[in-house]
This record gives sequence, C-alpha cells and structure tokens, in this order.
Amino acid sequence: MKILDCTLRDGGYYTNWDFDKNLVDTYLTAMNDLPVEYLEVGYRSPKLSGYYGEYFYCPDFVLKKLSVISNKKLVVILDEKNIKLETVEELLKPCLGIITMVRIAIDPEQLLRAIDLAKKVKSMGFEVGFNVMYMSKWKNLPDFLSNLKYVDGVADYFYMVDSYGGVYPEDVKEIFSLVRSQMKTKIGFHGHNNLELALVNTLTAIECGADMVDATITGMGRGAGNLKTELLLTALNQRNNIEVDFNALSSVTDAFSQLQKEYEWGTNLPYMVSGANSLPQKDVMDWVGKRYYSYNSIIRALSNQSKGLKDNETLNEYNPTELFQKALIVGGGDSVREHIDAIRNYLSLNPEVVIIHSSSRNVSYLNDCSNKQFHCLAGNEGHRLEKVFNSIPNNRIAILPPYPRAMGTYIPVNFKFNSFQLSEINVTDRYKSSITSLVLQLVKEMKVKELIVCGYDGYNGEITQHKLELFNENEYLFRNFSKNNFALKSFTPTKYKGLSQESVYSELYK
Amino acid sequence: MKILDCTLRDGGYYTNWDFDKNLVDTYLTAMNDLPVEYLEVGYRSPKLSGYYGEYFYCPDFVLKKLSVISNKKLVVILDEKNIKLETVEELLKPCLGIITMVRIAIDPEQLLRAIDLAKKVKSMGFEVGFNVMYMSKWKNLPDFLSNLKYVDGVADYFYMVDSYGGVYPEDVKEIFSLVRSQMKTKIGFHGHNNLELALVNTLTAIECGADMVDATITGMGRGAGNLKTELLLTALNQRNNIEVDFNALSSVTDAFSQLQKEYEWGTNLPYMVSGANSLPQKDVMDWVGKRYYSYNSIIRALSNQSKGLKDNETLNEYNPTELFQKALIVGGGDSVREHIDAIRNYLSLNPEVVIIHSSSRNVSYLNDCSNKQFHCLAGNEGHRLEKVFNSIPNNRIAILPPYPRAMGTYIPVNFKFNSFQLSEINVTDRYKSSITSLVLQLVKEMKVKELIVCGYDGYNGEITQHKLELFNENEYLFRNFSKNNFALKSFTPTKYKGLSQESVYSELYK
Repeated sequence: MKILDCTLRDGGYYTNWDFDKNLVDTYLTAMNDLPVEYLEVGYRSPKLSGYYGEYFYCPDFVLKKLSVISNKKLVVILDEKNIKLETVEELLKPCLGIITMVRIAIDPEQLLRAIDLAKKVKSMGFEVGFNVMYMSKWKNLPDFLSNLKYVDGVADYFYMVDSYGGVYPEDVKEIFSLVRSQMKTKIGFHGHNNLELALVNTLTAIECGADMVDATITGMGRGAGNLKTELLLTALNQRNNIEVDFNALSSVTDAFSQLQKEYEWGTNLPYMVSGANSLPQKDVMDWVGKRYYSYNSIIRALSNQSKGLKDNETLNEYNPTELFQKALIVGGGDSVREHIDAIRNYLSLNPEVVIIHSSSRNVSYLNDCSNKQFHCLAGNEGHRLEKVFNSIPNNRIAILPPYPRAMGTYIPVNFKFNSFQLSEINVTDRYKSSITSLVLQLVKEMKVKELIVCGYDGYNGEITQHKLELFNENEYLFRNFSKNNFALKSFTPTKYKGLSQESVYSELYK
Repeated sequence: MKILDCTLRDGGYYTNWDFDKNLVDTYLTAMNDLPVEYLEVGYRSPKLSGYYGEYFYCPDFVLKKLSVISNKKLVVILDEKNIKLETVEELLKPCLGIITMVRIAIDPEQLLRAIDLAKKVKSMGFEVGFNVMYMSKWKNLPDFLSNLKYVDGVADYFYMVDSYGGVYPEDVKEIFSLVRSQMKTKIGFHGHNNLELALVNTLTAIECGADMVDATITGMGRGAGNLKTELLLTALNQRNNIEVDFNALSSVTDAFSQLQKEYEWGTNLPYMVSGANSLPQKDVMDWVGKRYYSYNSIIRALSNQSKGLKDNETLNEYNPTELFQKALIVGGGDSVREHIDAIRNYLSLNPEVVIIHSSSRNVSYLNDCSNKQFHCLAGNEGHRLEKVFNSIPNNRIAILPPYPRAMGTYIPVNFKFNSFQLSEINVTDRYKSSITSLVLQLVKEMKVKELIVCGYDGYNGEITQHKLELFNENEYLFRNFSKNNFALKSFTPTKYKGLSQESVYSELYK
C-alpha cells in the first residue's frame, strides 16, 4: 500500500496555488524522510482566465526546481473538463523525465472521454491515475458502472473520491466491492474530512485492499479538507509498525499549522451539514468566506437545500407606490456615528430623501428621523435588526432578495406584514447575492435620480482576506452602477474609488 | 438512545471552569431547543488547594441559576479520588431537586470503592452514572472485570471512557461485548478525538446498544477534546432522521468557536501520538501549553515514551573545573539587541564574567566576545542554536537538564563532545523543566556570587495565556532564587519584579 501526499495540489484551493518558497522547501525536505511514495505537486492546465498561481500551472522551471530537492515520485493532475485530447501531448511533454504519474480528475459522467485522454497520456510513458469524483452517487449510475471494465489496461490506479466528505466506512466497503466486481485496476481512495471520517474511511479502504491512499499535511484542501498526513502516519506507525520520522513530520506540520491559522481550513458546522447531505462544498466554501453570511444563515440555507426547499417562504413583490428623487444609503461604517449630527441635520432639511439601511449597525442613530426608511435584509441580518428595536416602527419596510433565496433570509417578527421581495437583481452581472446589489436594485426600482452613500468607509490598515473581498465586491458594484446609471456620492470619508467623495457638511447651509 | 452534553464540565479544563455569563446563557438557551437530554454542568468538589472556578464547585446559587434557564436534566460529576464516603451526603444535599443525575469519575482500580460511594448517592434519590476511565486497559484487569457484576442495581449508566483517545471501532465492539457479558446496567460511551475517531467510535457504541453518549460543543474538552455535539447531531439528523434545530445549534457553535481561537483545543500531532500510543494527555496538554516546547520536542519525547525510552542518551555530568564569581545570563528579549553596544562594552571591561545563554535568539550578537560562554539547552533549542552558527566555536559548552529528560533534548552535532548534563535540579521545587531553572542550577554549580540578567524583558500590552504562564514561572523562579541565595539584577529594562532593576550603562565608567 502506497501513500500519495497532495498538499500543494489540494491546498492550492486556499492559496490560489501560490506557496511561500521556504514553506515548499520545508515540505519537500520533510517528505524526503517520510514513508510517502508520491507527491502530487499541482495541476498542469491550459490557460484559464483569472489568476491561478505557480502550482496550478507548474511550468517547466517549477517542476525542475522541485525535482532537485525531492527524492519522491512526482505527480501532476489534469482536470479532464479543461483538457482537449489534441493538446494534451504538448501540455505534458515538459513533464517527461520529471513526473512519474499523471492523474486525471474525472466527473463519472465523462468516464469514456477520460479513458481516451488517458490512453494518450499512457502512451507518453506516464503512470496514469484516475481520480473519479462523487463516489457516493456511483451506485445510481449504471452506465458508469458497466463502463468501468474499459479502465483496465489504461489506468494504473483508479481512485474513489469522496467528493462531499459524506461517506461512512460501510459505504466505502460497499462501493469498493462494487468497483472491484467491475474491473481489475488497482484502487485508490481520496477522503474528505467534513464528518471527521477521513481516517476511518481510509483505513477501511486499506482493509478492503486499496493500493494507494491520499492525504495532505494538516488536511489542507478544498473546503473541510482531506485526511491529515500526520494522522494517517501516526495511525500506521502504531497499527502497522511503519517507521515514521516524527521530527521530520512535525517540522512540516508546524509550518502548515501556521498557515492554517490564516486560512482556517478544516471542518465546521456548515461543512458537516453539506457533507452529511451530499451538498457541493464549493458553495459552502464561498459562503463561509464571506463576512456577511453567518454560520447561522449558511446552515439554514443548507438545511433548506437538503430538504429540497429553496427558502422558507415567498413574499409579495415590492411594487413602489411612491417614487423618490433622492436616496441616502446608510451602511455599517463608523463614519455614520462620527458625523451623525450633520447627517441628521441634512435629513431634517431634506425630508423627501428616502433612507435605505444596508446594515443594522447604524439604524438606531436615525430612529427618530421622519424620513421614510427602508431596511434591506439578507441572510441573518434580520436577527441583528430585531435586536436593535424593542418594537419596530410600523412605517418601516423590509426589502428582501428575489425568491428563491439560496441563503435563506430571516424576517423579524414585527416586519411580517411590511416585508417585500424584489423580483430580480438585474442591476449587476456579478455578486448578485451581495447586500449592496440588493440596495442598488431597490434604488433602481424606486427610480431614484440622486444617490448618496454614508457609512461605506472601506478599511484602514491591514485587512483580512475576507474584508478585502468584500471591499472589492462593493467597489465593483459602485463602479458598475455609476457607469450604467449615474455617479454615486459619499457624504462621509470613504476609501471606495467608485464613490465620488463629497461632504455632508457642504449641504447644511440652506 | 440519549445524548449528554458536558461542554461546561469538560471544557472547564481549558478555562479553569470559569465561563462568560453570556456564553453560558447562549449555551443553555440553544440546548433547550436541541435533542440533548442531559447537561453535565460541572463538578461538585470538596475544597482543593489552588484556583478552580464557578463550574468546578457549582455552589447552590449557580445550580439554581442554571435550572431557571435550562429545561434539560442537569448533571454534576464527582471525582471519586477526592470524595470521602462520610461527606458525600453533605456535598450533594444542595443538589436535591435541581440535579437529576450524579456521575462519578472512576479509576478502574477503585471500582469497589466507587460502588460504595454510589450506593450512598443513589439512596439520596439521584440517578447515578459511572464514568470509568482507561477502557483500553480493561481487558488486562481481571479483577475489574469480575467485579463489574456489582455495578448492577447501583449505577443507572456505566460509561466506557476512551481516556487516551486511542480506541478504534473494533475495540469499541470488543470492549462493549466484554462489559455486556459481565453486567446488565445500561452502557454509555465517552469518546476523545485524538485520532478523529470520536464520531465513528460513538456511532459504533450506539450500534452495539449504548443507551447514552457524551459530546461537547466544538469538542471543547481536556487535551484533544471530545466528540463534537454539532457533528453527532448532524450525523444523527441525516442517518436517523432526528430533528435538529440548526439555527439553535449554530448559535452555540459560533459562540464556542470564538473561544476555541483563544484556547485552541482540538487535536494536533502531539495529541495524535499520545492517543495512538495510550500515553496520558495531561502531560501533553501541559507541554503543548508551554511556549518553550516545540511540537518537535514534544513528539520526540512522546515517541521515546512510547518505545519505553526515557531519552535518547545520557551524557557526562557537568563538573565545574573553573568557578566564576560573576555571570551574565542572556535571555531572548529584544533589550539585548537594543543595548548590545553597552553589553559588549561591559563584557570586554569584565572578561572574567561568564556568559550563560538561555536562548539562541541573541547568541550571534555576542559571538566574538572573549568571555567564556555556556549554552543551556532544553527540548528543541539545540536545533535553533545550530541554525545560528555555521560552525559552533569549540570553546563553547552546552548544558542539558538531568537525565532522564522527559522532553528529550536535541544536541547540535558540533556540540557532541562539549555537552554535559546537570545531576539534578535542586534550586527550585517547581517548574524544574523550565530553562530558567536549568540556568539557575548551573549558576549554583559554578558557585557564582553575583548574577546579572539581560534579555528577560517581560511582555508589553496584551499577552496570551501561554506567555503569561511563562512570565509567572520565571517570576517565581527569580524570587525564589533571590530569597534563598542572593538578589538577581537586570541590566536591561525588565518587567520582572523578582529582578532588581539596574542599568548596564552605570557600569561602563571604569
């Protein structure tokens, strides 16, 4: 039985396939002293749009550099859906003499196409590994099962991949037998850790006769992550007397543990729920990454999805009975509190301006303004809003995203009769589930001609990855809206370049 | 099958049994909406020396407060080894009417004594749970097994506790059958998560017929922690159709996740190794908590322990051929670098002063001083020292703790012939494995009459729990040494009150 470590390949989902050079050195050096036979170091890929880093493309000089330090068999993986049969030879030629095995990530529906691709790869002299996804679905795919016999003689290893991280040891046994009954190729297992079953599933696969298993240091990998290499080695050291250099192992584990504190891979309640219910963790990974979705709303959305519900309820659509010339959007930034006297002054001088709250954070400062006030709610913001009011004034209106709402949306009790949904988000092509998109769509529905923003401050100093993403989203939405409609102004200090900087104080001379 | 959540009881090992009031409210409120039948809220205990907080003693007013909010059956636990038969009635009387079940933590060697205690507890009207430790050892304890029949009629639940976190599903099955063959009492299971097997072991126990299982929110609990309540509920929701309010569940999981970032419970390589090899995690928890032990040295120590080795080698004992009147201890603080010119000046004016390095951080600044230099090494410091030197000057001497060294100690290659161990640490009664203790012992052996310290700065601003512990240890050691020998001076700014503050600049007028 052999072990393949795919830390750089699978960990790249968190770092966009860029890793610090010292970390890579530490990794390769430690691996040299550990009982791991293959290292999967990344993808080879034709050009994709968007940024993907060093270990997504693994250009020649990178592979050479790795092979100088490493004494292991090196592996790259291809994503079948991105690879054309006629270009694969060119794509892999630079790997000859450096790379031992080429793996192919395969959707079970595309097994036959992958077999054609694999024949080409094998003819070049590489070992071939099939990484076939969604093992929990296979027993319901009769065509897939009957085509498995064509894998024999083409692939050296056929991996069962627990894509959702939701299989149990008894499933591993059942699916292993099913696959074994259809083909003779050596079988591998790639487990995910949503339910903390990666170790026991992998040990079960080994008992069933698996010839190779995957793991990554500290479990680094998409979503909830993988089987931890250090856990597998510790267990095999004790159970099977496999020799392990724990000094080498802990040096690389220490190094990746530091990175884990930054990116926080590993399982958590949303990943558990998606794993248990075979829901795609790509969505969950996106949601968990966004600051504006609490675990609560993610769980609610997942729970709805697992029951086949899109959301808990549909609402009446918002149909503006009143149109507004001017709107003031109030975000959650500190500048609202800092300039609250001026903002209140402005609002009392301009009673026709409609207030649209995109956050509950500053709602209470404007509680007694006579201007019409709307609250845009997404995800769990309703819970927060409920905490702001003892009783919500009955002239307030809540606006929710269009039905169905993937993330669910909590409607505060007192808003039950004053809540409406928009019919669609057409004001932007991207970030449609962002609360800023909801606000801008509402502005469009109200036929607002002049839009002022406050409390969209941006961030000072060092910011987290999540905040940066949120900032970039808002920036995109502001620029895009300004380009297609009219320029947006900010009355309070802002770091957003998509907002034209003005001052609330300049409007108080009336 | 019933679930008992023991987050406050078992989580208390990290917080000293104190929890923020809002967190406790969030916990109790969420639990009211979840399919958990019992909540174990803490210990009841006679007075122990040292600080243990609110949920270690659970005084009357605390229990009453909990019972007002919670609609669950409440549980307290007794530690059998601390409880006297004649005082247990008094200890538990205030629990009558509030607490449903009293559990007893039991060393298997003390089963009969615990049965006597349990009869008393049962006669008071409580349900009785036995939490019997070290299940992996039971099959080698024939007396324990043959005494199990006396549990019938006394305990309502007999828990198998995987104290080391090292059992596998097949062990759970075997031990369950063994216990079931000896007695009729309902069986419970309490799993630890060192090898991420807590879920699968617990599900296995349930399949075997367990009537109750334990879990804690986010797995909070001693060492590597427990089965996560959210993981158990998610799995049971999907497998057994048990209804779960995921909003309630995620509110409490969110709250404890915040705390987890501070205390960092959960498994890691040292806990995996201790679990796999049935080594006590109390030691590991202490070691992981100390900043001066790297995972590397902990793993090495564990690995030695699991092989029955105390350390890799014994060394010649240090036998001072030269005595010194004055010593300068150089710690790892920034003040050394900041005042390096003055320190070097002082040393060249006083060539008879011996330099003792307690850290490798500032070694290079004094590399060309002609004063005699010693390096005190513990754990992994030798690795760091090796990185400082291209080649270690051959007049240097390394001093190691007495053999056997629980934590192992790495000796840099070039020091092989210049390394000595001390015969004992008698300069202090506490913190004998601290590097500061080693330094002070060396000073004593050298018969030093005047001791100056630099680079022991203390910490500025907010500090972590670990740093605070380290600070308190050093403070204790300095005060203790000064009391029993002579006053220690610091030449650089320090926050340690046990050092008398002087200035290196005042010594440069010679």
